Parts: sequence; C-alpha cells; structure tokens
Amino acid sequence: MEGFRATRTILSLTRSSYVVWRQVLRKESTISPQTNLIQDLSYLKQEPKLAAASEIVKRYDTFLFDVDGVLWNTDESPIPGITDSLEKLKELDKTVILVTNNSINSRKYLQKVIKRRLGYDFPKENIFTVAYTAALFVKEIANVQGTVYLMGSPGMASEMDDLEINHVGFGPDPDPPSMDPQEILQRPLHENIGAVVVGMDPYIGFNKFSKAASYLYNPNCYYVATNCFEGGLHVGQGKVMPITGTFVTALNFLSKREPVVIGKPHKYMLECIETKHFIQRGRTIMVGDNLRADIGFAKTVGIDSLLVLSGANNLQDVQENLESDCPSKKNLIPDYYAMSLADLCKSL
Amino acid sequence: MEGFRATRTILSLTRSSYVVWRQVLRKESTISPQTNLIQDLSYLKQEPKLAAASEIVKRYDTFLFDVDGVLWNTDESPIPGITDSLEKLKELDKTVILVTNNSINSRKYLQKVIKRRLGYDFPKENIFTVAYTAALFVKEIANVQGTVYLMGSPGMASEMDDLEINHVGFGPDPDPPSMDPQEILQRPLHENIGAVVVGMDPYIGFNKFSKAASYLYNPNCYYVATNCFEGGLHVGQGKVMPITGTFVTALNFLSKREPVVIGKPHKYMLECIETKHFIQRGRTIMVGDNLRADIGFAKTVGIDSLLVLSGANNLQDVQENLESDCPSKKNLIPDYYAMSLADLCKSL
Repeated sequence: MEGFRATRTILSLTRSSYVVWRQVLRKESTISPQTNLIQDLSYLKQEPKLAAASEIVKRYDTFLFDVDGVLWNTDESPIPGITDSLEKLKELDKTVILVTNNSINSRKYLQKVIKRRLGYDFPKENIFTVAYTAALFVKEIANVQGTVYLMGSPGMASEMDDLEINHVGFGPDPDPPSMDPQEILQRPLHENIGAVVVGMDPYIGFNKFSKAASYLYNPNCYYVATNCFEGGLHVGQGKVMPITGTFVTALNFLSKREPVVIGKPHKYMLECIETKHFIQRGRTIMVGDNLRADIGFAKTVGIDSLLVLSGANNLQDVQENLESDCPSKKNLIPDYYAMSLADLCKSL
Repeated sequence: MEGFRATRTILSLTRSSYVVWRQVLRKESTISPQTNLIQDLSYLKQEPKLAAASEIVKRYDTFLFDVDGVLWNTDESPIPGITDSLEKLKELDKTVILVTNNSINSRKYLQKVIKRRLGYDFPKENIFTVAYTAALFVKEIANVQGTVYLMGSPGMASEMDDLEINHVGFGPDPDPPSMDPQEILQRPLHENIGAVVVGMDPYIGFNKFSKAASYLYNPNCYYVATNCFEGGLHVGQGKVMPITGTFVTALNFLSKREPVVIGKPHKYMLECIETKHFIQRGRTIMVGDNLRADIGFAKTVGIDSLLVLSGANNLQDVQENLESDCPSKKNLIPDYYAMSLADLCKSL
C-alpha cells in the first residue's frame, strides 16, 4: 500500500492545486503581496491581533498545527526556521499536535514526509490526519459494532488495520458493473456492516455507490465521511481531479442521508484527539492557513485561533469575511495572525 | 450493445422500484386504493376534471404519452384496452408521441418492447426517449461542434451513432484510476470536446469524473444531462442502485457547473419533438402518471395535462400539492385526470 500511486506527490500538489483552483473560482487574476495586505488591516472592524510570541506561549499549553501551508509552503519548501520553532515549543514543554484534513496518507507516511522535508522527528502519536481520525471515530467515539464498508484511500485502510477495525470494500470492486436490478438483487451484500466510511477512493464507481447506499439503507448503519467541502482540484493545464466532497455529495443524494464529517471544521478531530491526549480547551490554540477549515474548526470547538499567512488565506480574505452578510463567514475571524509559524516563534 | 446487461429488465423494474422507493421515502406503509382516493377529490381546492373522452379528442390534436405507468402497469402488464385506445386515436388522425425519461434504451429497443408487451407497432419516429432527445439536442438545438464526451448508456451511444455524432468515453475508461496529480497531468485529453453528456453509465468512476470535469473546465464546452431529479432506485431487499441524478449531482459539485437537463419536466423534450413534428402547443396534451416529471413538463412548456392513476402518483398526491406551501409543488396540478389511458378512450 505504501507504493500506491498517490502517496508520492499528493501532499504537495493538492495544496498548491487547491490555491490555484480557488484563484480560478474567485476570478482573481493576481493576489496582492502579503506585505501590502498587512497595511490593509486598518479596514478591519474586528481585527485579529498580530500575534506576539510571549503572549501566545503564556496563554496556551496545547498548539494544534495544520500541516500544508503551516509547516511548509505551497511548493513543499519548508517555512524557514520552522524546525527551530518546533524545537522551542518542545523545550517550553508545550504540546504540539498536527491536525490535517489529508485523507490519503497514514500517520506513518506523514511522519516520513516531515522527516524528509524538515529533518524533524515528529512523534506519531501527536499526528492526527483525517484518515487516522476517521478510524479513531469509528472505534472509540461511535463505537461501531460490525464491519466497516470503506470507500477510501490506502492511508485510511492502513489506519483501520492498525486499530484492528474489520473493513471491506477497499480497492477495486470485485463485481462487474451492472445496471440490471435483477443482477444487483442476486449479489450478496456483506453482513453486519456497521458503518460506511467515505474518503478519497480512486476506485469509486457504480457498484461502490450501489453497495454503500444499500448499507446506508439500514438506518442503524453509521455514515462517516472524512470531508465534504471541496469537490475537486485543478491539477493544472485545465485538468481536474475529483476529491472526497464529490463522492460524498453523490452518496448523500443517492442515500438521502448526511454523514458525520470528521475533517476540520467539524468537531470530531478534537474529540478524537481528546481520546488520546489531555487537553484544556481554554489553553489550546489552533494554528492554520485556511479560514474555513482551520479557523472554522477553532470556532466549532470553542478554542482560540491564529491564522498564518503562509498558505491558503490572507488578510484580505479575513476582511471579506468581516464584511460578509453571511453569518457563517462573518464568524471566521481568527483571534491572531502571524506571517508564518516560524515568524511567530522567532522571538521566543 | 443490444445484449447489454441492463436492457432486458430495466424498463419494468425501474418503474416498480421507483414506486417502492417513493413509498419508503414517504414512510407510507400502505397506499389507499384508488377508488377511495376518488372520493377524496372533494377536498381538492382547485381540482382537476375527470377527463371525458369526447372533450379531450375535441380539444387536442397531439397526444404526448409517458410510457411506464401509462402504457403498462408497474408490473409490466399492459393496461387492459390500451391497444384499442392507441388504435382509436390513430383512426381519429391524432398524433401520438411517446415521451419517456428512460435514458438507458434506444428508440429501436423501446419499439421492440412495445411490440412484445402490447402487440402494437409504434412508429419509431414518434418515440422520444431521453437517450434520443439528448442526441437530438446536441445535434439540432445546441448545434455542438466537435466531439461529445459521453458518460452514458448503450441506448445513448446508439442514438448518437444513428445521428452520426462523434463521441468518446462510452464504456469502461481505458486508464487505470489514479489519484496522482502528476499522472493526471501527463494523460492526454481528447481534443475538441464540444459537450459532456451524462446519463446512466455503469462504468462511472474516478477517471470519468476527472475527465468530464476537465472538459467542463472549458466554459465553451456544453454540459448536458438526461436527468437530475432522482438519485437512486431501491431494487428490493434493501438494495439500492444509483441512477443519473447521482452522477449529475457529483459532477455539478466537482465542475461547479449546472447542466442543461433534457428529461421531463424540462422544456427540451418538447423542443426536440418540434424539430421533427409540427405541433400546436395549444392543441397538445401531456398524459402521464408522474406529477413532477409529466405534469411538471406540461407546466414548463405551457401545454395542458392529464394525470392517469395507473402509475406513480394518485389523487392524494395531487391534493398534497394543492395544499403545499411550496410554489413549485402547488403548480403541479393536472388539468384532467383519468383512471387510465384506456379508461379515458373507452367511450370513443
């Protein structure tokens, strides 16, 4: 499974593609340089504070970090000084936990990527990918009895294996696709499916949709999705690839059900972390580059948040949210901002 | 293609499954017998008239008939006397046209089914399936230049072949599924794709979604879907199969575009018919068993409508629509109703 096609390049490309995709959607021909944006801060009505390291380390014990756009740039290059920041927080006896919506890779794989890119040994038990958290949710929060029908990635399957969760469905579907209801009727379904879990699955298809919806026809079967927001990535040259949101949207429509969504900004990532770590929410801060996912997550679980300007969103986006008529956007204002995580920790 | 798995049983099973599926969704344990429902008509505030054959044949020259639930019952058995009704309308020199949302079968195949079930030779040029109409729309209304990327059924491919429309994509996708953006970047797309057309496709999958969305990334590429309403069919024993709406919902989310939808209740079925037949809309009536699709279609194109009680909807449903707060439902009231098409024509 480690040799799976996607694992090599997805960590970097999905992030940069995401940014490109957003730019296209918003029809922005140029993005202003961040230095100029900082000057625009005066327009904000309820502005986030420029974070001061001394204040931050005094106020918080637990630091939740997003990964892409926080530990490294969109081009995979590490944020200069990032390793020093991680070391300093460790010296100060702070708990640092990575919280990422990536549903393709296992923690073990992400740990290797961090080692390769930053030269830093990040403890596996402090990494919470959505692939891992989905498994943790199934086992420790939903307490699912029975087998999981998994439409997911190698990382998701490997995390389920690690937690000794019985699962079926991973990989290509064994049956030839058929639109013949009689044939579908004759095909046996797995017995005792307790949950359908959906993430990135390159083998998604007619039969998988059919089977997942059939399991979900039982109202006692859990429906869990890693993500639901984003449907696709523009990978360049007018080429688009579907991501989890597309599959979840289809299955929602087909099954007429809504999943429990594990990824940020939903609350379950923190609930899963809390099954493994002692956390005081009042002394915990989420640091991320994405307003909707990261700052939204902080708002959902009632913790403070810090936006780093090294990734997806900038202060202009914060300003847009402040000025928005939409309550769900208006709420997406971080408590603090910093140019980058390294920048924040520089003066520690 | 005629030997394709789905073609044998889908015509009957999809309809009966649809009814079962609706019952489940509406949590109706029983459906009142139609005779009782007729007594309930007094509750209707703006009731449809019980159709009298003499009035109907006087007022209309063109009769558009839905197929499933109108020509035959949900169990495939022909409505008793249906052939006499068709013969009588023919004798009276009325134009009878079949208008069905079935996107799996070709006209040729449906013609054979009608012959087999009713013993009636229905002229192919008066059959408008959504598989045929999608092809007609592409060729004669949208005037698409270039090749069609088809995610569709054997019937759709065969109708495109008949109209000499170049198409690619039909059948299994030739590339192995890959979530690797680099690999997706390296794969060539077909040049000069003028439209993406989506219908029932048992080979739907990751690569097809990816390719379709990539073609739709070009704003000049048409996006056409046969249907969008229904996502799935309950085929019995808790087993569900996806239908076109599921794929269209997914592709909408992925491509951030909305298709031109060919099937009833959208207007294009009639526009396509009008490219082949002379029709006076003021002297045309739509006869169907489905309020949303058939009566909705009549409302969309501004023609009169008649609900037959031999299929999906009954007068209780009409009453629910009349009492609904939702304007789009409130509008779905037929001008006439009849127990069945044969019942209507009995006194001719």
